[in-house]
Amino acid sequence: MTERTPTHEGVIAAAESVAGILPPTPLLAVEIGGVRAWVKAEVLQPIGSFKIRGAWWRLASLTPEERKGGVVAVSSGNHAQGVAWSARRLGISATIVMPHDAPAVKLANTKALGAEIVLYQRAPAEHGGEDRDAVAAKLIAERGGTLGHAFGDPWVIEGQGSAAIEIAAQLGRAPSRIIACCGGGGLTAGLALGAPDSAVHPVEPVGWDMVGQALATGAIVHAAPDAPKTICDALQPTATKPLNLNFLKGRAEPGVTVTDDEVRAAQRFAFANLRLVVEPGGAAALAAALAGKVPVDADTVIMLTGGNADPAAYAATIAAAP
Amino acid sequence: MTERTPTHEGVIAAAESVAGILPPTPLLAVEIGGVRAWVKAEVLQPIGSFKIRGAWWRLASLTPEERKGGVVAVSSGNHAQGVAWSARRLGISATIVMPHDAPAVKLANTKALGAEIVLYQRAPAEHGGEDRDAVAAKLIAERGGTLGHAFGDPWVIEGQGSAAIEIAAQLGRAPSRIIACCGGGGLTAGLALGAPDSAVHPVEPVGWDMVGQALATGAIVHAAPDAPKTICDALQPTATKPLNLNFLKGRAEPGVTVTDDEVRAAQRFAFANLRLVVEPGGAAALAAALAGKVPVDADTVIMLTGGNADPAAYAATIAAAP
Repeated sequence: MTERTPTHEGVIAAAESVAGILPPTPLLAVEIGGVRAWVKAEVLQPIGSFKIRGAWWRLASLTPEERKGGVVAVSSGNHAQGVAWSARRLGISATIVMPHDAPAVKLANTKALGAEIVLYQRAPAEHGGEDRDAVAAKLIAERGGTLGHAFGDPWVIEGQGSAAIEIAAQLGRAPSRIIACCGGGGLTAGLALGAPDSAVHPVEPVGWDMVGQALATGAIVHAAPDAPKTICDALQPTATKPLNLNFLKGRAEPGVTVTDDEVRAAQRFAFANLRLVVEPGGAAALAAALAGKVPVDADTVIMLTGGNADPAAYAATIAAAP
Repeated sequence: MTERTPTHEGVIAAAESVAGILPPTPLLAVEIGGVRAWVKAEVLQPIGSFKIRGAWWRLASLTPEERKGGVVAVSSGNHAQGVAWSARRLGISATIVMPHDAPAVKLANTKALGAEIVLYQRAPAEHGGEDRDAVAAKLIAERGGTLGHAFGDPWVIEGQGSAAIEIAAQLGRAPSRIIACCGGGGLTAGLALGAPDSAVHPVEPVGWDMVGQALATGAIVHAAPDAPKTICDALQPTATKPLNLNFLKGRAEPGVTVTDDEVRAAQRFAFANLRLVVEPGGAAALAAALAGKVPVDADTVIMLTGGNADPAAYAATIAAAP
């Protein structure tokens, strides 16, 4: 099923499809260390994250027969909302496998969009946790339906890459580099495909740099059972997929990691300077730029990937002294 | 000095000038009570508010001789930042008269933009307060310079009206109605001039509806000495000006007032549904729409006028149960 390889032409087609339903998100000027660079405000998507792009392209690409069978997706929350939004719009039934500790706001939003939610325990197997892909596979075996994986899917990768097409049109040229928040590597792969002349930097939370480690070692790396906690709930895949790794090898820049404190500082920066609400996982790329971990020039674009922040946690971050 | 009358042609010219330095702010879809309407996200301006429009047009319209003498402005904070931003860009010296209790973030931002700040006591004269216009007049008498009033100025009114030109271009037609946060009536007058075929609704905090009361009585009304406190620091003029009232009479819709609780609910709505940071005064129009105090249809545009929120106050609002 995933034998199909994502292509640049596929990204172009995805961008045309996305443009038919979603206006481009703004590319906003931002000053970082005296340099005027850009942020791509994907938090302003209808569901508050870029995930609507890949989910839309995946579901829009289903055959009439596949549409009848419905879609099953696994997601910590933002892909879930993207699938639910797209499914409602296309009249497809959607079942989403979500971790039991997904933020309440993401669970509520997904349910409000009409999707059925199946919860699983997010933890290593030896600690009683379940593999989310296995939960989804079991559901599909029982009920049928097509899997809409959150990142290891060629259509999802192409759909996420549509952001790169918009960026180039808005900037009037290829960006020098795109700094991207990275979970499983769907967005990073899509951007690399959509912006072939730009450096693409994946940014991950400390201890959850499954893409960065895979890029460094050349092989899939699984999250350690004792991986540190992170506030970036959207960036905690247990591993990237071969589809993503094979494509990113030799193409993406080395991975960069950010700490919770750096992420919170980025959320405060976005609040005070951009007046944008950014969730922790959506602020990782900005955190890397602000911390000087990735160079920033006038043609650098920083992805602000998600804004579905838990109100109490966000309030604590904003109220904290810088 | 204010004998000049703001005109529709002046708004068109202001819009062209503004377009030369500022990209249009996004017009974003919003669902209110099951109706898909629009918000104009002026919080995404470089200084976080629409005030940059009027300030820019005022300063850009100064003669070379006037530019040399510098500009003096009075402002609770957002006009201050607009004047300071424009003055720095045009190489004009700026002195801003600000209330002693202006939010720290607005004082800091204005200072960071290179303006000199002169503080005054915001309170009725009989309570030891000073009239801010008198403070500014005294400064000009001593040092020279041109007054850039926050709302009672023809160029400022025309500049604010540039938002209406952008809205019509983005919507592809005249909006049915524009709901605007209203302080002294500069934005409301500008929108009425810039959108002659649209209903324009001024929204003010309870007890500070100096425009609404003036529209109802036909005469300038001053704030009561015992006017209730409001969290909308940006919407507390002691009175509107004849320039604004004469123009708005028979043109603007009757004023609407909103409570602090309604404003906080609107800030939470913008946080959760639009991922935009909106300060209290910037959320007044949205508050009126959400509270059903102004009808909303598919061609209604709600102005989100400012996003310079005090972090501690904003955090308390967001963390509070809805």
